[in-house]
Amino acid sequence: MAVQTAESTTTPDAPAPAGAVDLGPAAALSCRECDHRVPLGPVFACEECFGPLEIAYDFSAYDTEELRARIEAGPANIWRYAPLLPVPADVADKPNINPGWTKLVKADNLARELGVTGGLYVKDDSGNPTHSFKDRVVAQAIEAARAFGFTTLSCSSTGNLAGAVGAAAARAGFRSCVFIPHDLEQGKVVMAAVYGGELVGIQGNYDDVNRFCSELIGDPAGEGWGFVNVNLRPYYAEGSKTLAYEICEQLGWRLPDQIVVPIASGSQLTKIDKGLQELIRLGLVEDKPYRIFGAQAEGCSPVSTAYKAGHDVVRPQKPDTIAKSLAIGNPADGPYVLDIARRTGGAVEDVSDEQVVDAIKLLARTEGIFAETAGGVTVGVTKKLIENGVLDPSLTTVVLNTGDGLKTLDAVAGTGLTATIRPNLDSFREAGLA
Amino acid sequence: MAVQTAESTTTPDAPAPAGAVDLGPAAALSCRECDHRVPLGPVFACEECFGPLEIAYDFSAYDTEELRARIEAGPANIWRYAPLLPVPADVADKPNINPGWTKLVKADNLARELGVTGGLYVKDDSGNPTHSFKDRVVAQAIEAARAFGFTTLSCSSTGNLAGAVGAAAARAGFRSCVFIPHDLEQGKVVMAAVYGGELVGIQGNYDDVNRFCSELIGDPAGEGWGFVNVNLRPYYAEGSKTLAYEICEQLGWRLPDQIVVPIASGSQLTKIDKGLQELIRLGLVEDKPYRIFGAQAEGCSPVSTAYKAGHDVVRPQKPDTIAKSLAIGNPADGPYVLDIARRTGGAVEDVSDEQVVDAIKLLARTEGIFAETAGGVTVGVTKKLIENGVLDPSLTTVVLNTGDGLKTLDAVAGTGLTATIRPNLDSFREAGLA
Repeated sequence: MAVQTAESTTTPDAPAPAGAVDLGPAAALSCRECDHRVPLGPVFACEECFGPLEIAYDFSAYDTEELRARIEAGPANIWRYAPLLPVPADVADKPNINPGWTKLVKADNLARELGVTGGLYVKDDSGNPTHSFKDRVVAQAIEAARAFGFTTLSCSSTGNLAGAVGAAAARAGFRSCVFIPHDLEQGKVVMAAVYGGELVGIQGNYDDVNRFCSELIGDPAGEGWGFVNVNLRPYYAEGSKTLAYEICEQLGWRLPDQIVVPIASGSQLTKIDKGLQELIRLGLVEDKPYRIFGAQAEGCSPVSTAYKAGHDVVRPQKPDTIAKSLAIGNPADGPYVLDIARRTGGAVEDVSDEQVVDAIKLLARTEGIFAETAGGVTVGVTKKLIENGVLDPSLTTVVLNTGDGLKTLDAVAGTGLTATIRPNLDSFREAGLA
Repeated sequence: MAVQTAESTTTPDAPAPAGAVDLGPAAALSCRECDHRVPLGPVFACEECFGPLEIAYDFSAYDTEELRARIEAGPANIWRYAPLLPVPADVADKPNINPGWTKLVKADNLARELGVTGGLYVKDDSGNPTHSFKDRVVAQAIEAARAFGFTTLSCSSTGNLAGAVGAAAARAGFRSCVFIPHDLEQGKVVMAAVYGGELVGIQGNYDDVNRFCSELIGDPAGEGWGFVNVNLRPYYAEGSKTLAYEICEQLGWRLPDQIVVPIASGSQLTKIDKGLQELIRLGLVEDKPYRIFGAQAEGCSPVSTAYKAGHDVVRPQKPDTIAKSLAIGNPADGPYVLDIARRTGGAVEDVSDEQVVDAIKLLARTEGIFAETAGGVTVGVTKKLIENGVLDPSLTTVVLNTGDGLKTLDAVAGTGLTATIRPNLDSFREAGLA
């Protein structure tokens, strides 16, 4: 069940009709389980085995050095990698939110605190347009929606995704209709509503919202609707590959030795692995071992629980953690994550909510980066893996921060004034601040 | 009182002793009022006339095309312009927060709504590390603090600046001590406190905080302290020049015809003008006319009031507006702003808080950019200036968004769900969403 990119096979068994859709190097959809191929379209499950479909590429025409030069001359966003993504060649000219090319911060202060000597980096995706990595995947879904003639962009969400879809749809000229539980906190509603699309509260919990969306996709009422993480999921998911591409290019076209990735559905981690494998096969980086580590919060740790128990299957959990953007109790890509962690010599670990908060503060006070709870999870897990001797501090290590602390202020609400004084020097001296 | 860059005079009358401080092309401090020069140091007011000191440069050695190539080969942050800033040549190797090179978004949807035909762009500084333009100025202050041997970085603030100083000091290895009114909203306190520096609440209002800071600078207790916007102000302020540099480079080394800039102290607007003038003198852009427009909120509009009345002096106001990051009732650079607006054929205008909110929503629903209230002010003023026939819609126009909507959520708190339904298709159809 190894996760493989599919470009090695250049003759799809069911090619898309010529001229049907132009999604660049994307050649077909291929089942991750049984390799059955179908033409590119808004489908996500294999008709043979119900396995997940993913994009199969034809990269056979690329010359390594020409490709590298083309990427380096490209725009300062994910479209520099258009030759490796399911998007048309002129994608940079179309209205999109243009995420990516976020900072890879050399985290020397954090490295000192954690005892990392081989070079520690934070890939800081809070620099994306709506301040989370979701902009990367939504940008892909937008281009697929355009290719398939969809006019409405939709999703179910409780947070980052709602904002990313609202913003991207507004700019790209799509109607958007986002479904959320009706009793979401007011702040999150505002962040999603400000872009002016339809924002529909569903009387029910998040599971009810998801069930309703599945019903809508199968109904004539949902015709012309692209659900970014359902019927556009194969395209959407590819956006996470760009994290792998950027990290390697920013390291000087070099693979990191170790990379720590948060796990929600697990899709991001599998696509980062796919991206690294592609760079190796294309000759853009040297082929050498790398380890991928998965990070979860203790209160939603189905994958790390399975990893530690040596299981191949992931048993669902009921989430209870402050890391809400990672709180998927039944992660679709959990088994693939287990496979990748084991195959690469990585691991999957989890940390408590208290450790998440400590890690958010640690990253802020060492590197000036204010991370979302998901970033607290990856930094906290990195610390724990080093302390447990699992992560090797003498190797080059990249930690992902996938979101922004401004969106999860509650997590650090206990942080406050270090002193209160009267407006004079005596009071200042008394407080011991001089 | 025309605002002039000073690099035309290459022989400062009081040069810094050789080897004293290395701040690259910065040659001396020069009084904006009387041209008196003093060596580079942590001073901000002229000893002769009490006028504001600003940086005088020696750019005489630069060859235009060599300089352009050097900039283009530089990093994707403000340090690509190191040859034009008061920083050492190796600044990019030092720990700093590395802001800048934010997106210049071609705003075609907004242009259609506003009737702009000559090209409309939003310079979106919400992409900076702490999501406001303050990162640009603080990054400069950090390098000056390093050069002068300061160990503590400080400021008075009620918002964006506190976060920018906290983050940059953490990463650059300075102690930070930020002073705020003790009764600030909890959210703003958290955003400033998370970086782990001293955050001191002053029992008093913002004026009391400022008075206390001035007292501290003159006292031995303040020795070794760099106040970014007081004794480091001449260096700090230069950071705003980078907005001008980036806009022109991102337009393909071309001056915009019109640029709309928010006014708080007015410093940003004057430094953008200084930056544009420098690019012209250095031959990096063609010398042609440009117009600078200043934008204020009606509830704090001392400069636009003076502009409309034809005055040269600015009468202080007591601020009362939701655009709190612009709420400076007695703007130090107000007279210079009036001069620049008049000299360049621009104007200064203001909009009501209601228009600010409308403009925030307009920008979000057309371009997917969620701006702080200050961005609502510039977009709102742009709309008003077009409607009044003051801003020419047939010319290339750049509007600044200097902050992030996540920091001023209250302004759009009225935004919410567009519908609430039960989780079934009948309810969906009844709501007219199909």
